[in-house]
Amino acid sequence: MFQDFSVSSSPEQGPPRLAQLRRLMAERGIDAYIVPRADVHQGEYVSARDARLAWLTGFTGSAGFCVVLADKAGVFIDGRYKVQVREQVAEVYTPVNWPATSAADWIKDNLPRDARVSFDPWMHTVTEVKTLRDGLPMMDLQPCDNLVDLIWDDQPAPATAPFFEHPVEFAGEPHQTKRERLAADLKADCAVITLPDSIAWLLNIRGADIERNPVPQGFAFLHTSGAVDLFAIPGKADAVLDHLGPDVTLHDIATFDTALGQLTGSVQIDPKSAPQAVQLTLLAQGRDIIEQQDPCALPKACKNDVEIAGAKSAAARDGAAMVRFLAWVDAEAPKGQLTEIDVVTHLEGLRRATNALHDISFETICGVGAHAALPHYRVSDDSNAPVVINDLLLVDSGGQYLDGTTDITRTVIVGTPKPDHIKCYTLVLQGVIALSRIRFPKGITGGNLDVLARQSLWMAGMDFDHGTGHGIGSYLSVHEGPQSISPRSDVPLRQGMILSNEPGYYREGDFGIRTENLMVVVPAPALDGGDDRDMLTFDTLTHVPFDRRLIDTALLSDTERDWINAYHRDTLALLRDQVDGGASDWLVAACAPL
Amino acid sequence: MFQDFSVSSSPEQGPPRLAQLRRLMAERGIDAYIVPRADVHQGEYVSARDARLAWLTGFTGSAGFCVVLADKAGVFIDGRYKVQVREQVAEVYTPVNWPATSAADWIKDNLPRDARVSFDPWMHTVTEVKTLRDGLPMMDLQPCDNLVDLIWDDQPAPATAPFFEHPVEFAGEPHQTKRERLAADLKADCAVITLPDSIAWLLNIRGADIERNPVPQGFAFLHTSGAVDLFAIPGKADAVLDHLGPDVTLHDIATFDTALGQLTGSVQIDPKSAPQAVQLTLLAQGRDIIEQQDPCALPKACKNDVEIAGAKSAAARDGAAMVRFLAWVDAEAPKGQLTEIDVVTHLEGLRRATNALHDISFETICGVGAHAALPHYRVSDDSNAPVVINDLLLVDSGGQYLDGTTDITRTVIVGTPKPDHIKCYTLVLQGVIALSRIRFPKGITGGNLDVLARQSLWMAGMDFDHGTGHGIGSYLSVHEGPQSISPRSDVPLRQGMILSNEPGYYREGDFGIRTENLMVVVPAPALDGGDDRDMLTFDTLTHVPFDRRLIDTALLSDTERDWINAYHRDTLALLRDQVDGGASDWLVAACAPL
Repeated sequence: MFQDFSVSSSPEQGPPRLAQLRRLMAERGIDAYIVPRADVHQGEYVSARDARLAWLTGFTGSAGFCVVLADKAGVFIDGRYKVQVREQVAEVYTPVNWPATSAADWIKDNLPRDARVSFDPWMHTVTEVKTLRDGLPMMDLQPCDNLVDLIWDDQPAPATAPFFEHPVEFAGEPHQTKRERLAADLKADCAVITLPDSIAWLLNIRGADIERNPVPQGFAFLHTSGAVDLFAIPGKADAVLDHLGPDVTLHDIATFDTALGQLTGSVQIDPKSAPQAVQLTLLAQGRDIIEQQDPCALPKACKNDVEIAGAKSAAARDGAAMVRFLAWVDAEAPKGQLTEIDVVTHLEGLRRATNALHDISFETICGVGAHAALPHYRVSDDSNAPVVINDLLLVDSGGQYLDGTTDITRTVIVGTPKPDHIKCYTLVLQGVIALSRIRFPKGITGGNLDVLARQSLWMAGMDFDHGTGHGIGSYLSVHEGPQSISPRSDVPLRQGMILSNEPGYYREGDFGIRTENLMVVVPAPALDGGDDRDMLTFDTLTHVPFDRRLIDTALLSDTERDWINAYHRDTLALLRDQVDGGASDWLVAACAPL
Repeated sequence: MFQDFSVSSSPEQGPPRLAQLRRLMAERGIDAYIVPRADVHQGEYVSARDARLAWLTGFTGSAGFCVVLADKAGVFIDGRYKVQVREQVAEVYTPVNWPATSAADWIKDNLPRDARVSFDPWMHTVTEVKTLRDGLPMMDLQPCDNLVDLIWDDQPAPATAPFFEHPVEFAGEPHQTKRERLAADLKADCAVITLPDSIAWLLNIRGADIERNPVPQGFAFLHTSGAVDLFAIPGKADAVLDHLGPDVTLHDIATFDTALGQLTGSVQIDPKSAPQAVQLTLLAQGRDIIEQQDPCALPKACKNDVEIAGAKSAAARDGAAMVRFLAWVDAEAPKGQLTEIDVVTHLEGLRRATNALHDISFETICGVGAHAALPHYRVSDDSNAPVVINDLLLVDSGGQYLDGTTDITRTVIVGTPKPDHIKCYTLVLQGVIALSRIRFPKGITGGNLDVLARQSLWMAGMDFDHGTGHGIGSYLSVHEGPQSISPRSDVPLRQGMILSNEPGYYREGDFGIRTENLMVVVPAPALDGGDDRDMLTFDTLTHVPFDRRLIDTALLSDTERDWINAYHRDTLALLRDQVDGGASDWLVAACAPL
């Protein structure tokens, strides 16, 4: 079992650790110290060693940070975590609504103008520090040691899981040609790459340093020759030396900072992901720094034909597991004996039974009733609730397969739905459909398309407070940039990008709905009577039935009903042979035309 | 008659003037000299004195610039002007597709790395020069005199039209409180304001220095005390001295640069509109420059209740003139005797007959058939075409009234429409309807909503190559920021903003369609069953019938048909008493339910 349900932190752990940190701050004359959730690689998941925010405060969410002052400690969390933070942190911590309140604003309100603000420059990006400096022009901003590491006695050792090859049969392109084509487009003599998923993609390797995301932790330089210097903990890369070949030189990660200082010529860094420490070292050496997006970001996002074929086969395998799962829920849940943990456990078992699952792609979100109204609810032994009858069950989950990473959400009714369940489910589904069907010209962004997923909800006076879609890796991170679908996304969508399509609706204390498919951007076929204009569209990768009991056909246009029927027809054709007796019968019924 | 149809430039004028300019460049060792369309105030319209680009090249479009080299001269124009530029400039000029090709890229391709590039720093904004410098890091960028002014012997004198008061009965707020509330929000000790429409709004004055836009040309300082220094040509402001009162001090515009140099404390400028010369003067004095949006931009965009009421009464008055006009077109055009100029002339006459017209708000765009496919076609004596039967007629026009500026486009069929006319008109109208109906949360931008106006076209493989909507002033500029509706707009929409809603469709060489209403952002009423969530919506200001002969009801949803019928019902109720016999009968028929 990958997922576990134990409660790994408690509010009691925070206060003594906070007192210790404050003593150290006082010794060093520091008025504010910032403890981020992020590690040096800015990943969404962190290793046990890097779980500093959770260790200090008890808060285990995937984003946020703590600003510690002598008499106050703000835990900055976004809307997803406003309930969770209250349960996880002690009263010495003050939850702060972020990003509405920025770190700079809060510090300014609580400290004199000339206060000293410190942080570990390896844990904050160039952009983050710049934003902080712009917001606190008069304060004394001083990079310093990692103070948490100095007081955390039993801090786990760095992760040392070995790297392994991601074969070209899944990657679709050898790392030689990737290195060469990226090198040809560099804006400087060398690019510093600090994101593990970029390194994974560039070198066709994977790792196991952290859960859920098979990324290899390390750093790299990509030179205009196409050669790469790879920095990792000694021994980690032993199994991939042959695969990497003579143009990739391995170094001890302990020498990374020294090697940075020895670079010659101009150096390209991505200010949104590079630690400020990288910039400081380069500046100290007088290097010419060119700020550019990570050169792997866009090529990695635009999947090649092999990766897209892999995503389809992973989606079909995972979809078959989901069909078995939904058939089981329909059969078992109405008996009234299941809990949320039972549901998560059974689903993981079905994915494992494919014999292709390397990990789940994130902790399954499984919530009944009011729990489903928390978009990022994670069930634990403490919170585990029975799957009650006549309530909605929301399950958001995915698998890591060698041929692709999956992510799917389905919401189903156990028993009999209430009218509002049906109305809201249908409005959410209309959003999924509008986004799935759209054709659009090149240059259009996820920020332009996001409204399609919300329009039906908005017209009913409703909305949801999360993005509509995220990029996803190919046997990599389940959340991958640079593209996304949200009101603020400004990255043009390109052929080969995979995105989730996951509008939702949440009524606090009552119920929650989310429906999620993955889609890939493909060229749109020319239309009779249309212009001679290159356009794009989405091809839906995920095929698992929607819950027909929750669809109000009276709210649907003919086009929307036709789309659902075609989707179900395709789903039946794809999966019928993949599932056995009971699930097969369930699938046939679930895919019947509306 | 405000509009005239004479051809004011010819391709022949360009070559000798270009030769003169090149001689001056050679004397001064300049390899590239940039001649922009813009004047120091960056307005869309320029005075006769400032029409340097037209004088040099013959090109009269409202945006663009010329980069003159010793052996080449690029005229940079956007998609709207690609046909017009070929007719207006001689062969010594090379049209360049802009912004696809930037000035920097083109200069880099045509000159050695160490070339000298010069320009008049009063005619280019801080941002423009920064973009140029970023694109040409190795070149020698040197501000210099305005070389065109040095060779233009009979250059007209600066405009000296007197300023006049814009009474509070139209402005809705005295300039005292405007100055005070803006002053309280300044980010520096003083803001330099270089945009005439900002000065007009701030001080409740108008001017007549340029056609179509009643803006007063000048500069201003707004101090944190709320006091203003106004710089204008002596005599211009004589009529408004009492209105301005003791807190607004008048200065000769010739002293502006000196006064800039004498400012103390920090100074706020808008890099997107301030001339680089302003920045250079402040830098030379060691001033602390704070880059901020023009402090008037957002308050001016959010119309108050008086301005909105004015916009409605202007729209009704203008709508009545449009109804008389469309009734006349329907009666006269089928006789086959009208030309495009006849149509423009008659429409302006009907607006004048309201006795409230102070100017047209831009040159009426009136095109038949293939001319309508040019989104910004402007008829001249040379291009004037007959209004042929069985073709579409597109008319985009507006009026400057004291209570509001209007802008409306209607496309009508003269005779019998072709099936594609009807199909495309209906698709465009569906865009108008979707945008008119939408409810949306606060924070949403025009870039988020733009897709609503395009979705029906996209699904048919079509699109249009211009923005969907622009802001509009209150007896001010017909194009006003910062808000807009286009894929790239990132300004959140706020209550009181007025925007156009004008999707179109253009089939080159064949026909063109555009339908345009003005709308104001208003709070959306709460809905039964909706969330407790503040939302916004649009209230349509423009009421003039659509062409029922061009609507395919089979393509419409019930909701769309209901919306059109309600719009026509409102239009009839609003205008029936405003128009007489023949036009009234026409209106009743045009507003009949579909």
